[in-house]
Amino acid sequence: MEYVLPVALHNNIIESAYRKRGFHAEESKLATKACEQAAWHGIKTHNGIKALHLDDHFGSGNKTSPGCVPGAAIIKKPSKFEAAQKWNSQKKLGQAVAYEAMDTCMKLADKYGVGIVSVDQAFHYLWGGGYVMDAAKKGYIAYTNCTAALAEVVPFGGKFPTLGTNPHSWGFPTMDAIGYPIVIDWATSTVAMGRVQQFKREGKQLPPGCAVDKDGKETTDPNAVVALLPFGAHKGYGMSLINEIVGAMIGGSLPTLRSRPEAAAKLGVGSVEKTTPNFFFQVIHPDAINCGHFAVGRDQKSNLKAVLDDILGHGNKDTGRCMLPGEMEHNGAVRSEKAGGIVLTAAEIEEFAELAKQGGVAFDKASLKTV
Amino acid sequence: MEYVLPVALHNNIIESAYRKRGFHAEESKLATKACEQAAWHGIKTHNGIKALHLDDHFGSGNKTSPGCVPGAAIIKKPSKFEAAQKWNSQKKLGQAVAYEAMDTCMKLADKYGVGIVSVDQAFHYLWGGGYVMDAAKKGYIAYTNCTAALAEVVPFGGKFPTLGTNPHSWGFPTMDAIGYPIVIDWATSTVAMGRVQQFKREGKQLPPGCAVDKDGKETTDPNAVVALLPFGAHKGYGMSLINEIVGAMIGGSLPTLRSRPEAAAKLGVGSVEKTTPNFFFQVIHPDAINCGHFAVGRDQKSNLKAVLDDILGHGNKDTGRCMLPGEMEHNGAVRSEKAGGIVLTAAEIEEFAELAKQGGVAFDKASLKTV
Repeated sequence: MEYVLPVALHNNIIESAYRKRGFHAEESKLATKACEQAAWHGIKTHNGIKALHLDDHFGSGNKTSPGCVPGAAIIKKPSKFEAAQKWNSQKKLGQAVAYEAMDTCMKLADKYGVGIVSVDQAFHYLWGGGYVMDAAKKGYIAYTNCTAALAEVVPFGGKFPTLGTNPHSWGFPTMDAIGYPIVIDWATSTVAMGRVQQFKREGKQLPPGCAVDKDGKETTDPNAVVALLPFGAHKGYGMSLINEIVGAMIGGSLPTLRSRPEAAAKLGVGSVEKTTPNFFFQVIHPDAINCGHFAVGRDQKSNLKAVLDDILGHGNKDTGRCMLPGEMEHNGAVRSEKAGGIVLTAAEIEEFAELAKQGGVAFDKASLKTV
Repeated sequence: MEYVLPVALHNNIIESAYRKRGFHAEESKLATKACEQAAWHGIKTHNGIKALHLDDHFGSGNKTSPGCVPGAAIIKKPSKFEAAQKWNSQKKLGQAVAYEAMDTCMKLADKYGVGIVSVDQAFHYLWGGGYVMDAAKKGYIAYTNCTAALAEVVPFGGKFPTLGTNPHSWGFPTMDAIGYPIVIDWATSTVAMGRVQQFKREGKQLPPGCAVDKDGKETTDPNAVVALLPFGAHKGYGMSLINEIVGAMIGGSLPTLRSRPEAAAKLGVGSVEKTTPNFFFQVIHPDAINCGHFAVGRDQKSNLKAVLDDILGHGNKDTGRCMLPGEMEHNGAVRSEKAGGIVLTAAEIEEFAELAKQGGVAFDKASLKTV
């Protein structure tokens, strides 16, 4: 049995929890929008519960060295480059920064065909897939990457974790072709550390290629895991490295100190090394890559549909296992739509009850519809 | 024992072979530059031998439906987007198009911070890593992808090959940090079809996750292989799909007909469906993402070095197996430098002897230095 949380109540709970923590009205609203979008699309790992936990542990809740500062103002640095902006977000709430950056990229793409925004001194933006999905639904090709909070991933061939799980997210405007935007969105580790914990709880062995033990040797025993491996050997390693290089060129400091102000302090470099992540955003206008010469009299949209039909054709779709990235998120949204709200497990509902109490929002579990 | 081919002789052989096939002076020179660059960096899979074979089979050598047209002129389409160009390369030699596109992206990036060039009606550009390496050595962040010639890769969960091996290539200006540019460059299949042939010749089994048999079931028997699998399960599948989507939005037609004019003709759509690949290029100026606030008084370059040192530190480099992408290519160049020319196997030298004969270039194997 699962519970259906009406969107208005969900948003009231999350927004109130952010306001209670001192965040301003506008940033709380945007953070709530990100949480709603994740939950609505069935993303359990980056919903409101996770977002507020993150703020408690790494963000405004870390009183000695807060990773996130309520009400922080973004400094937009002067740039001689017309299609590129450089921001210092001063540890502003990541979701609010991400929506604004993506909006800016779309405006730049309207004029220049492509636009980028780089962000220094950032705080976790949660679900990157949400921002690119949003832009894709507005008709754009969108991309973002960030340096993930903690260095948990071992470089290919190495033994010590010096890379973040560093996700990449791409969104494509494929609504006319397939009814939803293609969203390619994943971390560059084979699995997340949360998945390792789950295997440990369930007493299961990990698949190969997921993690290493204290000596840096690959292990499938979740109890022996101390760090993760990149997906796809050297190829996933390269994808993870991209975020570190881009982050370093934007302004990020040593990956092993990221989100670890206590570790930096212990090393005696707490006052000089930065511990904040970085964001990179990019939007391309579809007309800016449309060379206008499609086969069989198609236009860009119908050509894209023909290509996707070809890819899923030839018996591929019929296997029942061949999907397009973004299809699961779309199915999540269809399920929410049908249920008339956000579908949550009993354990999740307890967390929302607690958040509601924190923010002073009336919440009666018994009044919720169940499915 | 290997042979050392002096660069001037290598270039004379390749350029003459291109000229002999009817290609014009400038495009032959650029194609030769690409072949030299690949061979110099130890890239055996995309050297001059491969480039000319490709032209023979799919390019100007395919007399009924040439994929490449000597002397073709690029049509640069009007665009209202200042940082984005749209080209119809009219099946011009891919390497010549790629160098020009990358040059254009660099000029756009100088002004706008970021620049993109999309290319329709393209012909194979061989080694994508070479173009991004070139731009990275000039100080830029460069990226390219293309739709690979043939649909040889099965979508994740599917059973029939409808995707190209669709490579991605990124180059980063890390010369000051590590002495060479980081070049991340790979196909989105786990292995290339050439590797499967090699395993077959050697009577070896493939590693898991590489290929499928005629029923679309995964196999490690190289004799049973009919198609390849994407690397890293759904993640590599997503990376492959990106090239198909971008290609489709630029102007590419059905992936299963790409580089297969005969198949299109047999289906009765040879006159209407296009069979050409597409290219996408992008360059970012490093100053356009430099937020100017580095820790410990570092600048962008020294910060990048500090981050890369951190990643390879903590015992990682000491394993002797932990490298940076681009290091092998750099080592290849060092070896060529030391040998005083391009190092080739006996089998490769025979191929060069044949190409020299074709182009009327005097070639005496016995006169070559050996190592």
